[in-house]
Amino acid sequence: MPNKREVAIISAAATKCGEHWDKGIKDLAWEAGVKAVDEAGISGKDIEYLVVGNMSGGMFVGQEHIGALVADFLGLNPIPSLRVEAACASGGIAFSQGCLAVASGLYDIVAVGGVEKMTDVEPEQATSVLSGAMDFEWEAYFGATFPGLYALMAKRYMYEYNVKIETLANVAVKNHFHGSLNPLAHFRNRITVEEALISPMVADPLRKYDCSPVSDGAAVAILAPLEIAKKYTDTPIIVKASVPASDTLSLLKRRDICTIDATVYAANKAFQLAHMERKDIDAVEVHDCFTIAELLAIEDLGFCKKGEASKMVNEGQTYVGGKFPVNMDGGLKASGHPVGATGVKQIAELVKQLRGEAERGRQVNGAEVGLAHNVGGSGGTAVVTILSR
Amino acid sequence: MPNKREVAIISAAATKCGEHWDKGIKDLAWEAGVKAVDEAGISGKDIEYLVVGNMSGGMFVGQEHIGALVADFLGLNPIPSLRVEAACASGGIAFSQGCLAVASGLYDIVAVGGVEKMTDVEPEQATSVLSGAMDFEWEAYFGATFPGLYALMAKRYMYEYNVKIETLANVAVKNHFHGSLNPLAHFRNRITVEEALISPMVADPLRKYDCSPVSDGAAVAILAPLEIAKKYTDTPIIVKASVPASDTLSLLKRRDICTIDATVYAANKAFQLAHMERKDIDAVEVHDCFTIAELLAIEDLGFCKKGEASKMVNEGQTYVGGKFPVNMDGGLKASGHPVGATGVKQIAELVKQLRGEAERGRQVNGAEVGLAHNVGGSGGTAVVTILSR
Repeated sequence: MPNKREVAIISAAATKCGEHWDKGIKDLAWEAGVKAVDEAGISGKDIEYLVVGNMSGGMFVGQEHIGALVADFLGLNPIPSLRVEAACASGGIAFSQGCLAVASGLYDIVAVGGVEKMTDVEPEQATSVLSGAMDFEWEAYFGATFPGLYALMAKRYMYEYNVKIETLANVAVKNHFHGSLNPLAHFRNRITVEEALISPMVADPLRKYDCSPVSDGAAVAILAPLEIAKKYTDTPIIVKASVPASDTLSLLKRRDICTIDATVYAANKAFQLAHMERKDIDAVEVHDCFTIAELLAIEDLGFCKKGEASKMVNEGQTYVGGKFPVNMDGGLKASGHPVGATGVKQIAELVKQLRGEAERGRQVNGAEVGLAHNVGGSGGTAVVTILSR
Repeated sequence: MPNKREVAIISAAATKCGEHWDKGIKDLAWEAGVKAVDEAGISGKDIEYLVVGNMSGGMFVGQEHIGALVADFLGLNPIPSLRVEAACASGGIAFSQGCLAVASGLYDIVAVGGVEKMTDVEPEQATSVLSGAMDFEWEAYFGATFPGLYALMAKRYMYEYNVKIETLANVAVKNHFHGSLNPLAHFRNRITVEEALISPMVADPLRKYDCSPVSDGAAVAILAPLEIAKKYTDTPIIVKASVPASDTLSLLKRRDICTIDATVYAANKAFQLAHMERKDIDAVEVHDCFTIAELLAIEDLGFCKKGEASKMVNEGQTYVGGKFPVNMDGGLKASGHPVGATGVKQIAELVKQLRGEAERGRQVNGAEVGLAHNVGGSGGTAVVTILSR
């Protein structure tokens, strides 16, 4: 962060993603919170500020006021607490807000959480709740769904850049492979290109294996000024930048539906603040709510030119062990997408990678700098965070 | 704020509160935003960060992702935007987050908005949406409503401190009187104690005139570091402190249901940060979602001992022109309670008061320091803000 106080992560932790029938939203937040606090070696009493990312507690479980709910359930009263929301980028936004709180000089130890309990509603209802992330009056009202919007993007992208459907399948196959090595992943099964290509159609050209699942889950990170973080850990992870950006909620108003301009803007700004270049990045977590989104992200983040991500994917460069590892945890596709938690879960994964603590087969060797990319809606919000060892 | 960067308000504005059948959530935000930007003498392009308080866009109008929505509709892309939520304290929390953004040194000109469009659902459904602010599993699930919870607090308070029902009515009469002088108020009719006492029972002892209305409305404040604010206005309003605090969401877990501990904690901390005492405050906006809440607020903020607010109210001290003016705009009761906007609307009112620009009859003469108090739920969140000329 470009200010006097450098922000660092002491610890970060996530629950397993999945269908947690035995856990409510409080239990999920508690589980991730206790893990993070334990790992940090702090006591709950040390926490001075709490930010919780949550997209739709109201519509999923009838519960708003989730900042205070989590503070209450974790025994953190009377510290300030709040929920922040930017659709599926709620977690990333929570993280950037936590960084602001530390950077402001008003708070030293700050907890950033993300939580979503999605499976208490029927699957069709989940799709309708998620439509709250698009422009209600101009998109949802007319029957648009997110698979439908991303399908439009995919169709156009495939046409513009002559990309074959197998490329999308390759993204899914790679992410399921990484997920198979991640004990916290929602899906741990490996799949083949053939399986992906014959899976049920959701919204042409997107099939089941192109879509991230509806998941329950939570993640928590503990932040502090670097100097204080060093007292708690020998391996503080430094926040070089955490930048949100906005764009139109509705796809119809975009300059180009194959580019998420909020990602472009946030990435450029983040690299500028971090004084880093694309080649400095060793490991990347991107927002692959649909397989097409992973391709767009790689390009919009500036790691290759428009239309060239398919080559990287088809050549296997995005596997751990490849030239440019993407979504080492299985991405949203396989590790799960508990919408409000996803952005913080990505941070927890990067912290693991930068500390060399990821499971065998999915650890990027010697990773020193990582980037997380979290998107809300079809690109109305994007958050880009750069972390370094 | 206790940091190197002193935060100030350049301008603040609110829409009229009421049933805005002809306006959607975007239109309300736009109206307040344009007023604030115009008053500030800035251009939209100068705004670097946007925080929007909104409680239940998802359940009221199917719309989440309201930070980006407002950024989009106000032409602010690609700046960072987010929605923050802490039930009915969402506006207050948004304001305190805006202050953090300025204080962090990362952003200079920050817009803080609050917006709620509540009247698109049936009144009974509004009550159910608002229940999202309580502990769903331990309160709402069992049929609790907010009038019911505050009625419990009122009953106990009247019993403990030997307070008569006329005191509650006096709060309503005073707030309707102030509201009658405020062109932006939802209700501009004056009422009598007799009218209040025979109005329909909602939840014993609370009657219709004890309850704030379901309102549509929005408010926006423009913040900057003091030195920059001075370039835009001769009367910057300085943010001496803006402090949120948390408590249990559910009333059943409270130490004492006649005290909102989050208010006590936030107020003590705010006065400490502001280096001020209670006697320094000239004008107060408190969170009177129900008349009982105004009595609790005066006491919990430390302006008198527990049980003594009724004397102040019954003696007429809380009128403009009295010793201790409270809710000069009519409070939530008469000026309206568009839940996510209320906290910012209070700030807009204080800015008006501290600049001596309130309407005749409701301007506190020579007001130099004001305090705003915003509560979420039955006290799970409280935000106390101290502003000075």
